Amino acid sequence: MLTGKSFIGNSRGAGSQVCGSAINPATGEKITPETITATDQEVRHALELAEAAFDVYRHKSGPEKATFLRAIASNIEAVIDDIAARGPLETGLPDARMRGESGRTMGQLRLFADLIEDGSWVDARIETAQPDREPIPKVDLRSMLTAIGPVGVFCASNFPLAFSVAGGDTASALAAGCPVVVVAHSAHPGIAEIVANAVQSAAQESNMPEGVFSLLYGGGRTVGKTVVTAPEIKAIGFTGSYSGGRALMDLAAARPEPIPVFAEMSAINPVTILPSVIQSVSAAENLATAASASLTLGVGQFCTNPGVFFIPAEGAEAFTEKFIELTAKVPAATMLNAGICKAYHDSTAAIKAQPNVETLLNVTSDAFGTAAPSVFKTTAVEFVNNKALSEEMFGPATLMVTYQDLDELIALAESISGQLTTSIHALPEDDITNLINVFDRKSGRVIFNQFPTGVEVCSSMVHGGPFPSTSDGRTTSVGTMAIFRYTRSVSYQNFPQSNLPAELQDANPLNIKRMLNGKAE
Amino acid sequence: MLTGKSFIGNSRGAGSQVCGSAINPATGEKITPETITATDQEVRHALELAEAAFDVYRHKSGPEKATFLRAIASNIEAVIDDIAARGPLETGLPDARMRGESGRTMGQLRLFADLIEDGSWVDARIETAQPDREPIPKVDLRSMLTAIGPVGVFCASNFPLAFSVAGGDTASALAAGCPVVVVAHSAHPGIAEIVANAVQSAAQESNMPEGVFSLLYGGGRTVGKTVVTAPEIKAIGFTGSYSGGRALMDLAAARPEPIPVFAEMSAINPVTILPSVIQSVSAAENLATAASASLTLGVGQFCTNPGVFFIPAEGAEAFTEKFIELTAKVPAATMLNAGICKAYHDSTAAIKAQPNVETLLNVTSDAFGTAAPSVFKTTAVEFVNNKALSEEMFGPATLMVTYQDLDELIALAESISGQLTTSIHALPEDDITNLINVFDRKSGRVIFNQFPTGVEVCSSMVHGGPFPSTSDGRTTSVGTMAIFRYTRSVSYQNFPQSNLPAELQDANPLNIKRMLNGKAE
Repeated sequence: MLTGKSFIGNSRGAGSQVCGSAINPATGEKITPETITATDQEVRHALELAEAAFDVYRHKSGPEKATFLRAIASNIEAVIDDIAARGPLETGLPDARMRGESGRTMGQLRLFADLIEDGSWVDARIETAQPDREPIPKVDLRSMLTAIGPVGVFCASNFPLAFSVAGGDTASALAAGCPVVVVAHSAHPGIAEIVANAVQSAAQESNMPEGVFSLLYGGGRTVGKTVVTAPEIKAIGFTGSYSGGRALMDLAAARPEPIPVFAEMSAINPVTILPSVIQSVSAAENLATAASASLTLGVGQFCTNPGVFFIPAEGAEAFTEKFIELTAKVPAATMLNAGICKAYHDSTAAIKAQPNVETLLNVTSDAFGTAAPSVFKTTAVEFVNNKALSEEMFGPATLMVTYQDLDELIALAESISGQLTTSIHALPEDDITNLINVFDRKSGRVIFNQFPTGVEVCSSMVHGGPFPSTSDGRTTSVGTMAIFRYTRSVSYQNFPQSNLPAELQDANPLNIKRMLNGKAE
Repeated sequence: MLTGKSFIGNSRGAGSQVCGSAINPATGEKITPETITATDQEVRHALELAEAAFDVYRHKSGPEKATFLRAIASNIEAVIDDIAARGPLETGLPDARMRGESGRTMGQLRLFADLIEDGSWVDARIETAQPDREPIPKVDLRSMLTAIGPVGVFCASNFPLAFSVAGGDTASALAAGCPVVVVAHSAHPGIAEIVANAVQSAAQESNMPEGVFSLLYGGGRTVGKTVVTAPEIKAIGFTGSYSGGRALMDLAAARPEPIPVFAEMSAINPVTILPSVIQSVSAAENLATAASASLTLGVGQFCTNPGVFFIPAEGAEAFTEKFIELTAKVPAATMLNAGICKAYHDSTAAIKAQPNVETLLNVTSDAFGTAAPSVFKTTAVEFVNNKALSEEMFGPATLMVTYQDLDELIALAESISGQLTTSIHALPEDDITNLINVFDRKSGRVIFNQFPTGVEVCSSMVHGGPFPSTSDGRTTSVGTMAIFRYTRSVSYQNFPQSNLPAELQDANPLNIKRMLNGKAE
């Protein structure tokens, strides 16, 4: 039974006024219950509980925190039918996606559980004393990563599970030892409540301190702003639009105590097709088939959607024809919410209206809240000179940009801003060194002969790239390296063994990988 | 023969107008030559050269970059007599300090050279493909750290060598693969020129691309601002005042493309004395001797100077008496420059004027540009309630804060803002768990029975703490972990072996430590 009320530590908020309801994007109808804005006192209480919980929670052992993360995963698994029932109403995403994304969410939680149970992630470093060193003795000095403090997490509209209440930001923050205060997304309050119940129960089942988790309903401009500017909060996790992310960055930078914002914002994820891979008609058509599938997957609502293709000006006819033929067959589908749907139509209209842009596919869909794929075409010269052509069209739209030769392709690559991904389709005998040298400067992940959609959750994933694709290109929001966002190093100098964290004691009771005097122990 | 002119890549700038001269802090006299402000065109040229150099320099192998860093060290070693002759005139620091700090500077460069020659620092991670995995195949994905881009480095007044032209920021940025554009400090332009000559020569001797290093003279508010806001610059390193660091943070955050600023700013480095360690008169006097030496070392001009002592309200008489007796004997000495000397006298006068502050030692020095040590005393209640008492007095001044019991001590510890260091003097049988739990949240380095001055340059040093001690408490400016400030991770997906960086190839040709499928290889 959903109530639309916030989770304040182990309790539920009463709230004050109604801040809205979920809206079924396929019909425009409100879905009960109404969502109730957390009161100022409730928000404050959640923040104070998080701060109080921090000192207890960060000292829980790796296995204890792992038990908590696994309990969250199990509790989500137990309500997966509820998620699959409610999710499509709130997001327009199908039942299978709800189940698949729930699986990914549980997988992330369990991956971080494994990481912290093992314990080696803390990068323990021991330098032993050299009391006789000249001219001055060397002190005993030991360092490890530790939790940064309570983290504010904003739910993403396009990943109602994997980047929302118990998604990647929450999982990595909890794994690092940080309590989280989650700000719900207005578009899917019901999924948020189902998942928050799972987290709140898991915290209590695992004997975690009250305040390790709270979920707040209310507008991002009120409740969200309070969270970002709260002195208790030491970092922010966010996935969403550039304007939203930049607003959080500016708020956080202007605090008396600035804090890091890890915002995953926007990208057009260029996919480069070299002439060699589309020389035969069959190769061209196979590639076009995969490209069209990547573009239209999930109504194009992924951060890694291929929003631009760099294709040869000549010899790409078979590729382009097949791409258009297949993409045109993809029916219009419901987008996540009315705002995203409107933005899709506005941004495609804006590209269409640019000079020297050819419209290859732009079907207007009459069905409420839906979008059909769009494909536009322009030249490299035009793309480089008109910044409007680099704007993201969030949804199943892409721009084919034709290049005359390798020099123009390199100029195209140099013209892009920071990206989550860049892709190159080439034969092994093609010399792509210069292209890679641009792309690995411009993006967080460079892909060979595959497409950018599909983000593996593993130890080597970088889902983060130079600004403006993320706020801080030094980090990733997907994969185990995401834990480093919410940590800092601490050194302990000349400490008695009994006062050192277990990770840094001579006896290595946790049996973790460490560095001893600059080398692997 | 010094000229006071900027280093623009492999050339020297002509400059425009005179921006000042070094001033001998012991006499107030100008020292030739005059310093010439870099022209706007020269600054722009240095930035463009740095950007152009980036793509070449970042691809130099670890051993090649190591050769460059070692050549800088050797070239500094060759001019150490020049440094020792010029340095005292510009800084008031003695010959021996110039030689010692040169040694540390060379040591840092060689430590980073060893690190990058070994190569394992890049945190190479390989996850191999599982084409048959259900429900979707797993892709081959490999990640490693790479250079972030050209870095702007600001020289520090209190470390004219170890945190200036070829100091820790420059060494770590160059080690990471980032060209540096250094902004000279107006107080020691001559040392800067001697060291910049060493770096410029080393770059050419080691066949590094022009633009890997430039040094700019001119005001921080003009040339410095241009560097911080330049699109070519991707990160900033700074050691100095809170106001200076915060100004850089605000400038960088307001850029169209915000960049990280690593500013090491201010700290009072609390030292806690438990009753147990001063129970005998001899123990109290020994501790007081060491404490006084730490306070007055280098005229107190260290970021880690112990600016506050937490001492028992009762039983600290022997400690305090000896501390005052010894500290009073330390003669007034020349401070780094007139600005720092004035700030010292202003800040000590401000503490002295606070209510309920007792002056234990405050000798007015008549000699030009000098400072004598100051010691003040107050109570824990006063310290917690009056924020003015937490202001840094940069120099040989400290505040003794008396606590009644452990509860008051914990309250004191909780009252401090982010610190570089915190120290605890205790016997092994003292229960200091609660105190450590506050201090390792509040500081980057927690010290047992030693003093905060003396910062070991090694793999486990964290010289960085929560704001406002640094801009970003997740990093360190001293030790090998400083390299991580100027790096970001990049993933390569499904790459042919020949297109992968050597660090990520199956054959591991560099023989580095790596992670394979989530475990040490």
